[in-house]
Amino acid sequence: MQWIDELSVKKCVDRKAAFDAMKAVFQAMDANHAQSFPVVREAIGHADALFGFKPGFDRDSMTLGVKAGGYWPNNHQRNLANHQSTILLFNPDTGQCEAVVAGNEITALRTAAAAAVSIHALAPAKSKVLGIIGAGHQSAYQLEAALDTLPFEQVLGWNHRSGRMRHLQAIAEQHNVPFVETDLTHLGAESDCIITITSSFSPVLLDSHVVGPTHIAAMGTDTVGKQELEASLVARANCFAELPVQSAQLGECQHAVSQGDLAVGDIQCIGGVLSGRLSGRHGGEVTLFDGSGVGLQDIALARAALRA
Amino acid sequence: MQWIDELSVKKCVDRKAAFDAMKAVFQAMDANHAQSFPVVREAIGHADALFGFKPGFDRDSMTLGVKAGGYWPNNHQRNLANHQSTILLFNPDTGQCEAVVAGNEITALRTAAAAAVSIHALAPAKSKVLGIIGAGHQSAYQLEAALDTLPFEQVLGWNHRSGRMRHLQAIAEQHNVPFVETDLTHLGAESDCIITITSSFSPVLLDSHVVGPTHIAAMGTDTVGKQELEASLVARANCFAELPVQSAQLGECQHAVSQGDLAVGDIQCIGGVLSGRLSGRHGGEVTLFDGSGVGLQDIALARAALRA
Repeated sequence: MQWIDELSVKKCVDRKAAFDAMKAVFQAMDANHAQSFPVVREAIGHADALFGFKPGFDRDSMTLGVKAGGYWPNNHQRNLANHQSTILLFNPDTGQCEAVVAGNEITALRTAAAAAVSIHALAPAKSKVLGIIGAGHQSAYQLEAALDTLPFEQVLGWNHRSGRMRHLQAIAEQHNVPFVETDLTHLGAESDCIITITSSFSPVLLDSHVVGPTHIAAMGTDTVGKQELEASLVARANCFAELPVQSAQLGECQHAVSQGDLAVGDIQCIGGVLSGRLSGRHGGEVTLFDGSGVGLQDIALARAALRA
Repeated sequence: MQWIDELSVKKCVDRKAAFDAMKAVFQAMDANHAQSFPVVREAIGHADALFGFKPGFDRDSMTLGVKAGGYWPNNHQRNLANHQSTILLFNPDTGQCEAVVAGNEITALRTAAAAAVSIHALAPAKSKVLGIIGAGHQSAYQLEAALDTLPFEQVLGWNHRSGRMRHLQAIAEQHNVPFVETDLTHLGAESDCIITITSSFSPVLLDSHVVGPTHIAAMGTDTVGKQELEASLVARANCFAELPVQSAQLGECQHAVSQGDLAVGDIQCIGGVLSGRLSGRHGGEVTLFDGSGVGLQDIALARAALRA
């Protein structure tokens, strides 16, 4: 049994490892070689906490495990992350626990890598301008991973409270890319790729904001009721997800689906694009990657950390 | 984060600790201070394995955790236990993982202790004869714990293959109690307390076998379809369980319930007897403890191991 703590995770895996792990696991999911088991998510009746489990098994990499943890909303008062998670890996031949891996850094890396994989697969040709909406803890990971992926020449940022994007500006400038905080009309009109990473419960990016060929990676919605994009924008997009059924239930697609403007069958597996089974972008349309997150992603990156 | 392996568990907890932990957690469950969350149990499609999770939270002891693992039927070919489990404990104030505890010894100890607690609470007065049905790995734990509990003067044993109870005979003799392998008619007629610990899918102990005041701890049935006792024996018994709803679904009570001869409301919480809320044995009847097992038991004993 190995225990890999947060510091060791940071030494063992990086953005490249996360990108490769997401590509592989998304393809395994599309081919039905990797399977998510039922998710448990419960209010424990203490500390306002939500606690749960996201288990899965990837036969391609022979990785069996579970992401355990949840959301403790008062943790910031203790200088701890509100999201806390731990990943267990089991030997699929014997059921023995092989490793316990701290899950906070892994969650951040895999979420950023998922968006980056979608940008790599679905961005309009010759994308130059990257938009980022949101300036919380996760936004820095998202920006770093996206800037690795394509040679963007400008980053446009927007946050619901202005003047809080200096950490993102610093990251962009480290990559020699200018960063401009702007309004949503300008961001939506100019950006070739847009990442949304907020905790919003009402549309932030509207249909009218988005002009021309654009790829949107919507990464903030993982719960019934959350919403970052106007439903009509989702309905007119060419939609992709890790797990279409989950996106239709609790991802960004939930609103267009519940309004009857999008069917589950309209959402395609991102893994199918990566393997060449699906065509991906057709031309000048808006593509959407609805990244609601599955435990298989965390397990895949935890396995990479263990191997390293 | 602490890792407590099987050897350390054996050093940290014993039958007394397990008995005390089961008494406490059963009372917390009866008082609705301890809550089980939904159980996940899935065939992974590899090695014929069943894999799953049993999470729970006990506010009395502030213990939040999950038992993870399952059943790998080919493990015996590798000299490993077919049942493999690991217990995670989390800080309920922050969600951080506090400990990972090997779960095999804990499962064995807590299952034996649960039956022992039921014998302590429900055995007929002046019980002298203990019956044990089954001779597998778990039977030794059951016999040890039961012999700790009351001053039995004889043990009667039965197994579906005769001549395989020498290890149980040795345990009884260590306790200076004679052991006799016998038939079910004799065992059922003479025993004051009976433990069943088989993996049977059809009744072993019949209604006609059991004569006079008797307590039965049925410990083998934890899945839909399993059965150790004739349903009419269950229907005429005064029934107790850790979690009546679970017993009615997948414990020994499932058959009497599905035949309409027992209602969920007829099964009482063992914890209520321990706290004095319920009366327990009325007189000369058959009492049944249907021990189908909940993750809260494992988590409780893992917490005891961590504290030790």
